[in-house]
Amino acid sequence: MPELRKDPIVGRWVIIAEERAKRPLSPRSEMAVVGEGGICPFCEGNEVHTPIEILAYRDRTSPVNGPGWRVRVVPNKFPALQIEGDQDKRGEGIYDKMKGVGAHEVIIECPHHELNMAQLPEENIREVLWAYRDRLVDLKKDPRLVYGMVFKNVGGAAGASLEHSHSQLIVTPIVPITVEEEMAGAEEFFSYRGRCIFCDMVHQELGSEKRIILDTPHFLVFAPFASRFPFETWIVPKTHNSHYENIRKPEVDDLGGVLKTVLRKLEVALDRPAYNYVIHTSPFDVPSLGHYHWHLEIIPRTTRIAGFEWGTGFYINPVAPEKAAEYLRETEV
Amino acid sequence: MPELRKDPIVGRWVIIAEERAKRPLSPRSEMAVVGEGGICPFCEGNEVHTPIEILAYRDRTSPVNGPGWRVRVVPNKFPALQIEGDQDKRGEGIYDKMKGVGAHEVIIECPHHELNMAQLPEENIREVLWAYRDRLVDLKKDPRLVYGMVFKNVGGAAGASLEHSHSQLIVTPIVPITVEEEMAGAEEFFSYRGRCIFCDMVHQELGSEKRIILDTPHFLVFAPFASRFPFETWIVPKTHNSHYENIRKPEVDDLGGVLKTVLRKLEVALDRPAYNYVIHTSPFDVPSLGHYHWHLEIIPRTTRIAGFEWGTGFYINPVAPEKAAEYLRETEV
Repeated sequence: MPELRKDPIVGRWVIIAEERAKRPLSPRSEMAVVGEGGICPFCEGNEVHTPIEILAYRDRTSPVNGPGWRVRVVPNKFPALQIEGDQDKRGEGIYDKMKGVGAHEVIIECPHHELNMAQLPEENIREVLWAYRDRLVDLKKDPRLVYGMVFKNVGGAAGASLEHSHSQLIVTPIVPITVEEEMAGAEEFFSYRGRCIFCDMVHQELGSEKRIILDTPHFLVFAPFASRFPFETWIVPKTHNSHYENIRKPEVDDLGGVLKTVLRKLEVALDRPAYNYVIHTSPFDVPSLGHYHWHLEIIPRTTRIAGFEWGTGFYINPVAPEKAAEYLRETEV
Repeated sequence: MPELRKDPIVGRWVIIAEERAKRPLSPRSEMAVVGEGGICPFCEGNEVHTPIEILAYRDRTSPVNGPGWRVRVVPNKFPALQIEGDQDKRGEGIYDKMKGVGAHEVIIECPHHELNMAQLPEENIREVLWAYRDRLVDLKKDPRLVYGMVFKNVGGAAGASLEHSHSQLIVTPIVPITVEEEMAGAEEFFSYRGRCIFCDMVHQELGSEKRIILDTPHFLVFAPFASRFPFETWIVPKTHNSHYENIRKPEVDDLGGVLKTVLRKLEVALDRPAYNYVIHTSPFDVPSLGHYHWHLEIIPRTTRIAGFEWGTGFYINPVAPEKAAEYLRETEV
């Protein structure tokens, strides 16, 4: 059973998950692998190689845990957190720990062995976006769970271990420190200006134009002013909404194309970089918030984090976001 | 001129340093390189390939910027921050920025082309530790500068671009967010228990023994309870001291051997891993503090940071610190 441990100085939680060390990894760990014995557990027809499915969008006549699906969600075989049991909070002198109760799921994005989300049809990507929503809505019902984080690792350098296009969902029993800090910062801004800082950001970026990568009816895609990484890209909904799971159909329809276009642009501009994307959204147990605004952050992994960044939380970025945005804006896809 | 930009949501500063993009990097960026044209600028005799020296421990008869030195400090040729000019703080709508005033120096640890600090004689390592101190004491006199971060990147995966053994020092005009958070957490602990949390940690680790890697008269080396990474290792002085630059001679004498032994252990146990180390110390402009305690954190780069970690600040560590400590404790060097 994984264990959650709290750093007594900064309050950061760490998951000690020894099971995870058993994952199949490429010897050089530079590349994601197909699967054990060359069998991809995510391909249609290989459903027996994954745990039992939690959700699948599939043909009405197809058998559960068999072929015939378009998007499929299963528990992670090497989970960082597990759904069973009590939290069992304990102290150990000055230290705090609890059992690693939570959820860790894999969203398999397509039945065929496609490595690249940007190659999927828009309609397929929309179903992936709906699967994120459906899982969040479902997990939200468990009172032990407070936060759901949807993310995607592409390429070994970004932490991917399997190459078949997939996303992940980790649901935690506490609000992660990064989210807490982001929400606190946004709340502070709201409390003295009465406005959502993300809405303000969208407004200012639309005015200056220089950091815009893509502008659609429902989303603004831009390189953030204080980009930590070269070609860091944020996708922000234009309509205020604190919870991803409250996304509306016209937004999903738009976002399918936006995500495909932006990932294609990054792929062409940076020659298929490893990348991560993460959906930042509000905790389950709070109502709709005026000060927080869900968004998706894409981080191409073209640079390596060095000691200075670890020590300080200060990032050194050799590419100005204005230049990255201009380049991506002009990249034809 | 580099620019400092503040993230308006969480208050994190980012250095946009386009000059840095010109650094010589290995094409695969997996390995650090010798230097441009195969000439190592850090080797004795090649002093002409570095900027003019700031400090050198050298034979009395040897010429400044010539051979005859043991440890040598020069400005970084591709600085993230520069010492000249005013900060020129400005706003841009909701965003804040300032010029990248600060210092970025390289501590060249030995005159011969040694790649590995653990191979240097203890006496050589002690001189490196003194160089850190001497530079901090000197830079502290500049009222524009408030924080000095000493760090070391070893191996391409840890962000090193040159292979000759060296450390770096970046001095910033603001206190980095990670340091601020660590100090705030330590102060909070102090305010309700009246004790330094690092002193408490040393005490508790000495009592339980299970996370100890090395125990010497002046230092305790252990795997922290909430280790973010496999084999994360902290070196903490047993005597309370908030500022590294106040280190005393018996401590430096001890630390030379401690650092050599610990780095050797990591090298043997993990087969020469890439790693970073960072000295966490107090800002220049505060007096000796009861609640903060300098220490050195070593982070072997055996795992890759994935999307979940970026998004949440939650780390998933597949190796329990108790197991890592036991393994390192028993590794003969």
